[in-house]
Amino acid sequence: MYPEVLNDAIASFEKIPGVGKKSAERYALSILDLSEEDIDSFANNLKQCKKKLTRCIICGHLTDKEVCPICSDSSRKENLICVVEDYKSVFMFEKSGSFEGKYHVLNGLISPMDGIFPEDINISSLLERLKGKEKNSEVILALKPSIEGETTTLYIKKIFENKKIKVSRLSYGIPMGVDIDYLDSITLDRALLDRKEIS
Amino acid sequence: MYPEVLNDAIASFEKIPGVGKKSAERYALSILDLSEEDIDSFANNLKQCKKKLTRCIICGHLTDKEVCPICSDSSRKENLICVVEDYKSVFMFEKSGSFEGKYHVLNGLISPMDGIFPEDINISSLLERLKGKEKNSEVILALKPSIEGETTTLYIKKIFENKKIKVSRLSYGIPMGVDIDYLDSITLDRALLDRKEIS
Repeated sequence: MYPEVLNDAIASFEKIPGVGKKSAERYALSILDLSEEDIDSFANNLKQCKKKLTRCIICGHLTDKEVCPICSDSSRKENLICVVEDYKSVFMFEKSGSFEGKYHVLNGLISPMDGIFPEDINISSLLERLKGKEKNSEVILALKPSIEGETTTLYIKKIFENKKIKVSRLSYGIPMGVDIDYLDSITLDRALLDRKEIS
Repeated sequence: MYPEVLNDAIASFEKIPGVGKKSAERYALSILDLSEEDIDSFANNLKQCKKKLTRCIICGHLTDKEVCPICSDSSRKENLICVVEDYKSVFMFEKSGSFEGKYHVLNGLISPMDGIFPEDINISSLLERLKGKEKNSEVILALKPSIEGETTTLYIKKIFENKKIKVSRLSYGIPMGVDIDYLDSITLDRALLDRKEIS
């Protein structure tokens, strides 16, 4: 039904996770309403994104520099490191804006079933980062509550066992603004287990 | 917060109507997961879309040829023409697949307030298309039920007044699958006015 070039554009939009056939059609048709200049810069921006962005050599976060702005920010605590699965988590934390430490991006989670072992993700450089400043350091594990997340959390906890580094994880519980009636039972069990005394 | 190239990509995605800040962020971040090849073809497809697509010289529909496949399809009725506002409407009709005539794309609606007059939209070529074959011809006006749509409908109705061409418009009424309780009163009035006897 569509001209071939339009079908190609629709197929490209469908490659984006979360964009279905209908949205892809709508987006591709909308593209035609943009100016040629806008389309050229759109096309260029997509290419540049892939080309210019690399991993920060310190924390593994997405950046267009050698060292990301967070790692080079001297006002952030050097000895408070939040370990996350990927750069998307870093952006989420930065949006909330309350974390004053630095990050360490694993770029994956341990999953032996999928052939991903500790050496395949960015763990060893985390040890190096904390070498010599174990005292007063804290590593916060902010990984998702899945089998892979738990496995990775336990693994990292274990390698820090004999070092003087405090290892913590995010609290589990009821998300803000959610009606308890609609909550799944595992989350509710967890919230009950981790209950805090009101002081 | 985001690297500059990523901000540029987000801005580009936001240019698509219906894509908000949040979706644009999500899409731009997803782009990074695609292969370089996919991104190159994505960028290229966007450009090609704008470059290769033109208007059919007969009906004004979007096409990558001089004459669109619908106009060159001899199995479709030459003397049954559905007049639509833009190429998106043509795609909508073609999806339902039940229309066996041809189209005429106005590429706009008469709107004196916005400085759009009859000569600014694709009306004159409609008259030319039907010249000499007025008998047995029908023009179906499928324009949206807004002030501009009604104005354009009335205008076209008027120019065909003294010709032997049947001019009709789509029926207004209750959309399929919609609960009457949730309908606006104008639609309900229209459905009542245009009621059909059950035979």
